Amino acid sequence: MPSKSIITLTTDFGESDYYVGAMKGVILSINPDAAVLDLSHTIQPHDILDGAFLISQAYRYFPSRTVHCIVVDPGVGTARRPLVVSADDHFFVAPDNGVLSLIYDQVETVQAVHATATHYFLGEVSQTFHGRDIFAPLSAWLSRGIQLSHFGESVSDYVRFKMPIARPDGENHVRGAVIKIDRFGNCITNISPQLLPDFFGPQRPNFIFRVGTASVQKICQTYAEAEVNLPFIIFGSSRFLEISVNRGSAANILKISRGTEVEVTW
Amino acid sequence: MPSKSIITLTTDFGESDYYVGAMKGVILSINPDAAVLDLSHTIQPHDILDGAFLISQAYRYFPSRTVHCIVVDPGVGTARRPLVVSADDHFFVAPDNGVLSLIYDQVETVQAVHATATHYFLGEVSQTFHGRDIFAPLSAWLSRGIQLSHFGESVSDYVRFKMPIARPDGENHVRGAVIKIDRFGNCITNISPQLLPDFFGPQRPNFIFRVGTASVQKICQTYAEAEVNLPFIIFGSSRFLEISVNRGSAANILKISRGTEVEVTW
Amino acid sequence: MPSKSIITLTTDFGESDYYVGAMKGVILSINPDAAVLDLSHTIQPHDILDGAFLISQAYRYFPSRTVHCIVVDPGVGTARRPLVVSADDHFFVAPDNGVLSLIYDQVETVQAVHATATHYFLGEVSQTFHGRDIFAPLSAWLSRGIQLSHFGESVSDYVRFKMPIARPDGENHVRGAVIKIDRFGNCITNISPQLLPDFFGPQRPNFIFRVGTASVQKICQTYAEAEVNLPFIIFGSSRFLEISVNRGSAANILKISRGTEVEVTW
Repeated sequence: MPSKSIITLTTDFGESDYYVGAMKGVILSINPDAAVLDLSHTIQPHDILDGAFLISQAYRYFPSRTVHCIVVDPGVGTARRPLVVSADDHFFVAPDNGVLSLIYDQVETVQAVHATATHYFLGEVSQTFHGRDIFAPLSAWLSRGIQLSHFGESVSDYVRFKMPIARPDGENHVRGAVIKIDRFGNCITNISPQLLPDFFGPQRPNFIFRVGTASVQKICQTYAEAEVNLPFIIFGSSRFLEISVNRGSAANILKISRGTEVEVTW
Repeated sequence: MPSKSIITLTTDFGESDYYVGAMKGVILSINPDAAVLDLSHTIQPHDILDGAFLISQAYRYFPSRTVHCIVVDPGVGTARRPLVVSADDHFFVAPDNGVLSLIYDQVETVQAVHATATHYFLGEVSQTFHGRDIFAPLSAWLSRGIQLSHFGESVSDYVRFKMPIARPDGENHVRGAVIKIDRFGNCITNISPQLLPDFFGPQRPNFIFRVGTASVQKICQTYAEAEVNLPFIIFGSSRFLEISVNRGSAANILKISRGTEVEVTW
Repeated sequence: MPSKSIITLTTDFGESDYYVGAMKGVILSINPDAAVLDLSHTIQPHDILDGAFLISQAYRYFPSRTVHCIVVDPGVGTARRPLVVSADDHFFVAPDNGVLSLIYDQVETVQAVHATATHYFLGEVSQTFHGRDIFAPLSAWLSRGIQLSHFGESVSDYVRFKMPIARPDGENHVRGAVIKIDRFGNCITNISPQLLPDFFGPQRPNFIFRVGTASVQKICQTYAEAEVNLPFIIFGSSRFLEISVNRGSAANILKISRGTEVEVTW
């Protein structure tokens, strides 16, 4: 165990409202020694896929037993369940709406509990802000060492989001899509290196990348080696294929948005 | 006392300038063991009401004796006083411009001190950045246990902002206004449950809500139970009446802005 | 040494991607006791000058031996060197692209090391995200007390950004430029008090300030003393000459952008 408890926060609450502050207060009231770290509060509103992508990319860099609290919760107040999950020696607290789907995909053994022990919730639970009333207190109690089994019963039918999946489509042909556009305008796809073994082989054949209506042929190892304004393909830090532009926005230049189709042919 | 000192920051400084960093540095130079937590730095610029609303909603979730430092300070450098306030077993450090009005309204016993003990300020005090030079150091010293009386003389004539107040207007009629629009486009009013006892009674009469030029009749308990794009009324997590839309922005759909009048008739 | 290790983060990564979270995770995995503080993640993308200005203004308020990690790194993956720098009893970890230029300008003794000891990097180093793979781990190891010399060889040819410099231009005439526009629309120039000794003398002569195509004559000590909408000159908290407007944006009213020329005549 690390020498102090770490709790990360990922929400779509933005930074201009009292919501994030209330969650931090609730956590520290239960565990004043926790280190509370912001991952992002600007997940696209109600966008479960955006939240799923962020936490799946960020969590693994934290120490074992870190508690990750993820609140992207358009169904707040409805029957959707609050979950406490142990996976890959990390903990996750989130609504059961699929926001942990990419964690489930990456990890072999998942232990998920439907949190029903209301004495670990805030005294009064609203129907509109479970971030404050349920997920923050669960995270804080978890960080204090409460066992998963104390929060409720194990479940195995947790919701898995239907992720857009990249797949081979005939020989030497892969279809995928852009799943995230970052601040720099890099367009991150769901195409993993495993789908393009020839790309990394000793003799790389000629590759053509179609992105929406545009065609990209240039391949780079670093952002800076490309000419300015010339879109190129790179395998980025998330390990997925990206379309990028040196010191510019590939998304703007090629009019790419999330969901834009990507085809790779070789 | 909690096992470590907690200091929260609420400012209108934004996140692209050095102002927030300087405040954090000043605090940690005086009390390296303080946990410094961001509530919001995107209060609307110079908007005392926006800051007042946020801190009044967030503070109570923190542990007793938390120090809340609030800097929305259009009058920086003028005669307006720096205050150190104890209320509801929390501490507040802020300019005396009304940004604590909603705290004063909610709390029975307020002890306010006009901070004049300049040895608790930064060595050199500018006329343009008291967040760094006065409010951050006062917060840090307070978190180290300095007594209120050491900062200066008690005052009782602290500035109270004239809040827009919701009020009954004849029988079965309440007038109020939108005081905050959140990231999701929820429009939070100043109409509290106390003004609408019949709303929560056993037999709810027919209610009509006029918001600007629009009329809303639908009432929901959760955001998700409404049809998409159909505005509805809900009592939100701030305990006030809100106009909302499921997975959409009520503010955009109904062209509501802060200050828009709200009338309730039944 | 302070009672705990402090690491500050300044990046252009924005707040909607996983990049900042990954850096925090890497740091805490190496030094779980570090206090990680956000200075800004909204440095203009790829804008080395913007990052240089922010860290040069913020660092000095932190305790001695604070580690400042600055990642504005358009050349990531190329030959530009990772640096670990000791200056003014603070530590700086950054790419060698000039982002520390204003630190070098302000400090007499700089010790800079080209970090080549790859066992202080993350196990696998990408070519696109050295914030996570190199700068975060270097910062964490530094905060654990590793000596500078252990990271690599000293260098003295570190890159210094050609800063826009304000200078006298004939008698009673100074030319400079706007180098930063803050959230309030204050336009901060590179004109220091030292260039305008008569301004602060006992008998201030008549000063005229030309900013782009506009002319400003009003001089204020505080933001609030000016009439609304009337631009004025003030020496702000950064100690540089600013063009400001009370409760308004000087940048918008006078159509000022970064780089706009400023001439002072008296």
